[in-house]
Amino acid sequence: MASLATAITSLIESKKYGTLRDILITMNAADIAALFEDLEPEMLPRLFRLLPKELAADTFVEMESDSQELLIKGFSDSELKEVIDELYIDDAVDIVEEMPANVVKRILAQADPDTRKLINELLKYPDDSAGSMMTTEYVELRPNWTVEDAIKTIRRTGIDKETINICYVTRADRTLYGYVTIRRLILSQPDVLIGDLAETNVISCKTLDDQETVAQMLSKYDLIAMPVVDGENRLVGIVTVDDAIDVLQEEATEDIEKMAAITPSDKPYLKTGVFSLYVHRIPWLCILMVAAIFTELVINHFSNLMSVQFQSFISAMLLACIPMLMDTGGNAGNQASVTIIRGLSLGEIEFRDLPRVIFKECRISLLAGATLAVVNFGKMMLMYVITYHNSFNNQFGPYLLIAVTVSIALCCTVFLAKFIGCSLPILAKKVGFDPAVMAGPFITTIVDVTSLLLLFGLALMLVPKMV
Amino acid sequence: MASLATAITSLIESKKYGTLRDILITMNAADIAALFEDLEPEMLPRLFRLLPKELAADTFVEMESDSQELLIKGFSDSELKEVIDELYIDDAVDIVEEMPANVVKRILAQADPDTRKLINELLKYPDDSAGSMMTTEYVELRPNWTVEDAIKTIRRTGIDKETINICYVTRADRTLYGYVTIRRLILSQPDVLIGDLAETNVISCKTLDDQETVAQMLSKYDLIAMPVVDGENRLVGIVTVDDAIDVLQEEATEDIEKMAAITPSDKPYLKTGVFSLYVHRIPWLCILMVAAIFTELVINHFSNLMSVQFQSFISAMLLACIPMLMDTGGNAGNQASVTIIRGLSLGEIEFRDLPRVIFKECRISLLAGATLAVVNFGKMMLMYVITYHNSFNNQFGPYLLIAVTVSIALCCTVFLAKFIGCSLPILAKKVGFDPAVMAGPFITTIVDVTSLLLLFGLALMLVPKMV
Repeated sequence: MASLATAITSLIESKKYGTLRDILITMNAADIAALFEDLEPEMLPRLFRLLPKELAADTFVEMESDSQELLIKGFSDSELKEVIDELYIDDAVDIVEEMPANVVKRILAQADPDTRKLINELLKYPDDSAGSMMTTEYVELRPNWTVEDAIKTIRRTGIDKETINICYVTRADRTLYGYVTIRRLILSQPDVLIGDLAETNVISCKTLDDQETVAQMLSKYDLIAMPVVDGENRLVGIVTVDDAIDVLQEEATEDIEKMAAITPSDKPYLKTGVFSLYVHRIPWLCILMVAAIFTELVINHFSNLMSVQFQSFISAMLLACIPMLMDTGGNAGNQASVTIIRGLSLGEIEFRDLPRVIFKECRISLLAGATLAVVNFGKMMLMYVITYHNSFNNQFGPYLLIAVTVSIALCCTVFLAKFIGCSLPILAKKVGFDPAVMAGPFITTIVDVTSLLLLFGLALMLVPKMV
Repeated sequence: MASLATAITSLIESKKYGTLRDILITMNAADIAALFEDLEPEMLPRLFRLLPKELAADTFVEMESDSQELLIKGFSDSELKEVIDELYIDDAVDIVEEMPANVVKRILAQADPDTRKLINELLKYPDDSAGSMMTTEYVELRPNWTVEDAIKTIRRTGIDKETINICYVTRADRTLYGYVTIRRLILSQPDVLIGDLAETNVISCKTLDDQETVAQMLSKYDLIAMPVVDGENRLVGIVTVDDAIDVLQEEATEDIEKMAAITPSDKPYLKTGVFSLYVHRIPWLCILMVAAIFTELVINHFSNLMSVQFQSFISAMLLACIPMLMDTGGNAGNQASVTIIRGLSLGEIEFRDLPRVIFKECRISLLAGATLAVVNFGKMMLMYVITYHNSFNNQFGPYLLIAVTVSIALCCTVFLAKFIGCSLPILAKKVGFDPAVMAGPFITTIVDVTSLLLLFGLALMLVPKMV
């Protein structure tokens, strides 16, 4: 891509516009938009004017909003009007949402009155709602039409519709009656009534439904579009599968960010400024750092206790195990919570599954805890042979008790981590918190503190004083 | 759903098959399949026989493979043949891939010879390739046909095709010429030649391309289907958007699992056995636990050194900071690596962006590190006032040096964590490792050990001996 950008730049500089046009029209909108991002901003208007009308509009939609703004500012009013007329309404709304007020004014002024009205209507729906992602450009048929009427209507009006693969059938009051696929229309006799042909068992969503739920439904039912109705079941728009994919990808990214203790942003990484990335990351870093005060107090308290009760090399040995214990607990809890959070997002796990999930995780954690305890015990025995037997003056007994203490603490920590890791996200979702946000921070802090209490408590009970 | 299952069960027991059929035909395949999972297995064959042929096939596709196997075993040969005839080839292949050998034999025996040949061909493509997810049921047109010819062909053959929304145009030797949307066909005059109408600038993929790449392309270019060609550019199948969504969702889940140190599995959580979940989770838990040996040795070594050089309450204070330091380092590194890994999967970040990414992360980490150091310093000052001034006999000097040491170590740790967190995934991808797998484990271990060395090194230099 970098070398293509260089070639294009030199073609612009030598004003070979014919050649440029020939190159551009063989490319796809998404690729042209990517190319534009690699070029100097002042070259964009000249290049953009070389594109045929439809390709220009498609490219415009795929561009980053900074570049869109820049282009709009360079457009003459008639150029702006031409681009807006070519855009699908839902894309136009997405663009308007990202622009500063003065640019929005210019766009709305240039749009024809019908388009302006539609844009204004769609702007009213809350972000992340089905209404905000829908388009109003769909094919609408009536039950009393024949297939021939329908095909004529599609021929006449279909050119401006975002999809004609599915046509929606509405009654005279615009309430949703059903749908007919274009496939079904084509495969039917011309005199069949649409009302008889239509599939009336239709999956629809409401304007205020959450866009992620809607996208999941499109995916679940393998649809390429879904009708959006208002409170009175009147058809107001459709959501298409290409937008649903974008929503699903964005939501997966958001979940991943939240699990990594980042407050989510919706811009691509390379387009986000340093300060903005900092602002998205620092809150949880600070909160979690301050939460570590609990572990700090526990360690401080017990290491003072231990310095009285144990020889210093025994204290050192127990303290040295802390990172292993806390990391393993953290990893084990994370495995459980991440699996459950993803299951919740994909709709595979619900609140009523809580007992099953807990029972399952308890069994897994006993298996995993036992394995880890055995491996850890083996490792500690090996360490004794290799190095620690000197510190203990070859007294195996006390060391054995330390190894047993650490192994038991490890097994209990894993059990606890999996238990909290699997139940907290489900409970969080039930009471209306975001499971992905609850997961990491809380689980880590709870598991950290408890595992330390376990380790030190067991050590003070099991390991003999001042051996 | 649970109560629906109860209602259905009692209807089956009272043999109200008419009512059952009426309920089932108003439902969607995906919902019926979900309902089946909640019922006793022995009820499935009876219910399944109530479904109309097409709905039965759609439902069958949506079911879990265990239930599919159970149903197939209960089918008579003619019932099995009926279901297979209704399936799309790509779905049939997916089902065959999950079945044990004896069931596969029965399925292939009942399929008609053409279907059997197609299934066998598709089975040959490697898992995760475009070939394994494509279907061979698409509409194929020739450039020398007119629109009228094309529509006649679609009318005659379209009923068995997975999509007729996009028709593919091939030359006599079956090499790909271009595509025509059904929309374009309908909106054109009957005597126009397909060759003139077809869009020849067509995005296609090869049979052996990675399915994730193909799914990303469908998403990037907003396609509802993409042609798959062999080495000689001959059209062999198409990939449809519904399968692409499933692949994207699965790949996001896989990435999330890998980042949480789980080896990915492709079954939903509730359907996976305890032992299988254990097997997917235990390897990394063990590896990471054993890797903690390094932190253990470092702490052991330095705490023995410190017990000679410092009073025990100073050692205790430094040791108590370790979890905070390691957790913050882990979180900071995780934030960077997770952002980068997701960017790599979405194709937003490439190897050539490495310098930009590193420069960006360095600036973020300096901001974040400085903030955290200041907050930590403030917190430690507060702790002195509240509790620690007693241990230090109100000598503020030595405590100040400890606070400075910990704050500097914290800032350096954050810098290091972000640096490794952002660069390691990109380098891993470059040399052919999976960035998601590399991330957590390696970064944690490197950052843990280095942050400890920093803390203890600084402490031994800065904090005065035996105050």
